[in-house]
Amino acid sequence: MSGKNDPGPARVPAARLQSFITRAFETAGLPATDAAVLGELMTKADLSGADGHGVFRLPQYVRRIKTGGINKRPDIRILQERDGTALVDGDNGMGHLVMRFAAETAIAKAKRTGVAWVGARMSNHAGPASLYAAMPLAHDMIGLYLAVGNANHLPPWGGTEMLLSTNPIAVAVPTQEEPPVVLDMATTVAAYGKVKTAAQRGEMMPEGWMVDREGKPLRDPKRADDGFLLPIGGYKGYALSLIFGLLAGTLNGAAMGRGIVDFNKDETTPTNTGQAIMAIAVEAFAPVAAFKRQVDEVARTMRSSPRMPGVERIWLPGEQSHLKRLDRTKNGIPLPAPLRQSLDKLSDELKVERLL
Amino acid sequence: MSGKNDPGPARVPAARLQSFITRAFETAGLPATDAAVLGELMTKADLSGADGHGVFRLPQYVRRIKTGGINKRPDIRILQERDGTALVDGDNGMGHLVMRFAAETAIAKAKRTGVAWVGARMSNHAGPASLYAAMPLAHDMIGLYLAVGNANHLPPWGGTEMLLSTNPIAVAVPTQEEPPVVLDMATTVAAYGKVKTAAQRGEMMPEGWMVDREGKPLRDPKRADDGFLLPIGGYKGYALSLIFGLLAGTLNGAAMGRGIVDFNKDETTPTNTGQAIMAIAVEAFAPVAAFKRQVDEVARTMRSSPRMPGVERIWLPGEQSHLKRLDRTKNGIPLPAPLRQSLDKLSDELKVERLL
Repeated sequence: MSGKNDPGPARVPAARLQSFITRAFETAGLPATDAAVLGELMTKADLSGADGHGVFRLPQYVRRIKTGGINKRPDIRILQERDGTALVDGDNGMGHLVMRFAAETAIAKAKRTGVAWVGARMSNHAGPASLYAAMPLAHDMIGLYLAVGNANHLPPWGGTEMLLSTNPIAVAVPTQEEPPVVLDMATTVAAYGKVKTAAQRGEMMPEGWMVDREGKPLRDPKRADDGFLLPIGGYKGYALSLIFGLLAGTLNGAAMGRGIVDFNKDETTPTNTGQAIMAIAVEAFAPVAAFKRQVDEVARTMRSSPRMPGVERIWLPGEQSHLKRLDRTKNGIPLPAPLRQSLDKLSDELKVERLL
Repeated sequence: MSGKNDPGPARVPAARLQSFITRAFETAGLPATDAAVLGELMTKADLSGADGHGVFRLPQYVRRIKTGGINKRPDIRILQERDGTALVDGDNGMGHLVMRFAAETAIAKAKRTGVAWVGARMSNHAGPASLYAAMPLAHDMIGLYLAVGNANHLPPWGGTEMLLSTNPIAVAVPTQEEPPVVLDMATTVAAYGKVKTAAQRGEMMPEGWMVDREGKPLRDPKRADDGFLLPIGGYKGYALSLIFGLLAGTLNGAAMGRGIVDFNKDETTPTNTGQAIMAIAVEAFAPVAAFKRQVDEVARTMRSSPRMPGVERIWLPGEQSHLKRLDRTKNGIPLPAPLRQSLDKLSDELKVERLL
């Protein structure tokens, strides 16, 4: 795509992106403190390389706020709780605000009980799963996050009606010297964004990403509407998506199955998104420093494995994100031309200063 | 394999299998109460269709007890605990005894705190994952079980050294009228037992189960030692196996990575198997009956999806096990000839009455 001397897309410093996002939300009518939290969390998403889940979503979020599809002044609160659990009502606020509240609640509870599980209903799209799974890390806790996706792309195994989303899981485990081990994955082989990218580039998809309604491989991304995503490991990925949906959605009284609102097509109906976060205090099981050193050791053992021909390096989950974070913190966050154009358009609409 | 009028293998009533297993463990030197628990849990495994994880393992367990590889009189105890957590030392006892204790501990704690997480070290192979994930169901709780497998079959993604096991996850969700939704899966496309079965039958494996050390598809199961199992979803399954290993193994001070003892090849070294069980009380989040009805509804929605050509039925996770349980409870547990021979041999060695 790009030649050797191509400097790549323009880059924007993280602080500048953060204040741009904050200003956009303020202008759209959110309270300043909430806008600041969104600026911080969405910039974190972009820093970590979650390009489809950071500022890329800003125009869509703002549109949804303007149409009334998202509550600008939500009363995010605990509906019921036990020592180790809470059920949070997000009051149709921005998902980031709901899940930050949920994660902080889980962390505070796990400090006392060793483990806590907090579920949310009436939430919304909250960006990358790893953002919340990683919040307990700073408290020497393991984080686990589950979410119901905001559009169904997956039928039950053997079926043809898209009743499930790519319901993701993220788990973050603290380390001493190594980057934290952070798993963040959809339960489908490919995320839907990858299909869109292939279509944009005019490329064929590899077999295994999608099938058509007859179960035959679908390789042309322009025909994506004629088929659906494949779950990882066949029926196993279907079962994972279903179970994560029951835990993050049904248990919290949130949408699941036919109740899912496709937030790409419908900008006004509350999505009643369900998410869940768990925090486990390491010290409830092991001396913290010793555990972190052992995780380092496991990571190094994996990396030290002899490699298959042509494989240059063995990666740990979260390591590529970590390297992107280092690079982007130093050199700025890349803004590919189409993204820049869409943000410039948004700036003009909101009458706020352009990013670059 | 079998003709239309083939009555199939001989069947043994569950009660008879249970007393046979109990007697075998008693004769091998276990206390009567422990032997009875093993008889009950292993029979449950066979009833549920987990044919590779029930009485099939009895000769191996007895051999390990006789060589001193398993502690006949373990002091299974809590090493440290919080309101919502416990770390259990299995004292190298039978894994079933350790994990039953761990599950009961988690259930008792979750009754008070809403959620509990109990980890175990110095445990052993405990049979099918779903056995423990399903224990909280009777208390209107959701169960989640993770385990480190007892032999490494999987390299890190891109590597060739088998540093990971098929580390399984099981999750069980209670229902009202539908069979409980029970996911029980290894993080590899095929369990190793399936490879052994294909070798026995002289069949080739489908592409996607195994690769050789060059990463090329390996289809001849007789060449299984030249390659390794493939994780579900490529690097995603590798990441899941690693994360489950950190949570069920490393966090509990149990074996992981190069520390795994291959219990098929080494019958004396303590395996220091790690497992973890979580229980979530449904009532901490929702009225129990309403939640169960909603899970029923989700299950029925999945089942009602239009189907791909040739697909007769859409299954829910755990539904096939449920039907096997009904059939086997009524008609007995099938004993294929090789299993029957191996159990007869064991009977003769232990000088206990044969099963049939």
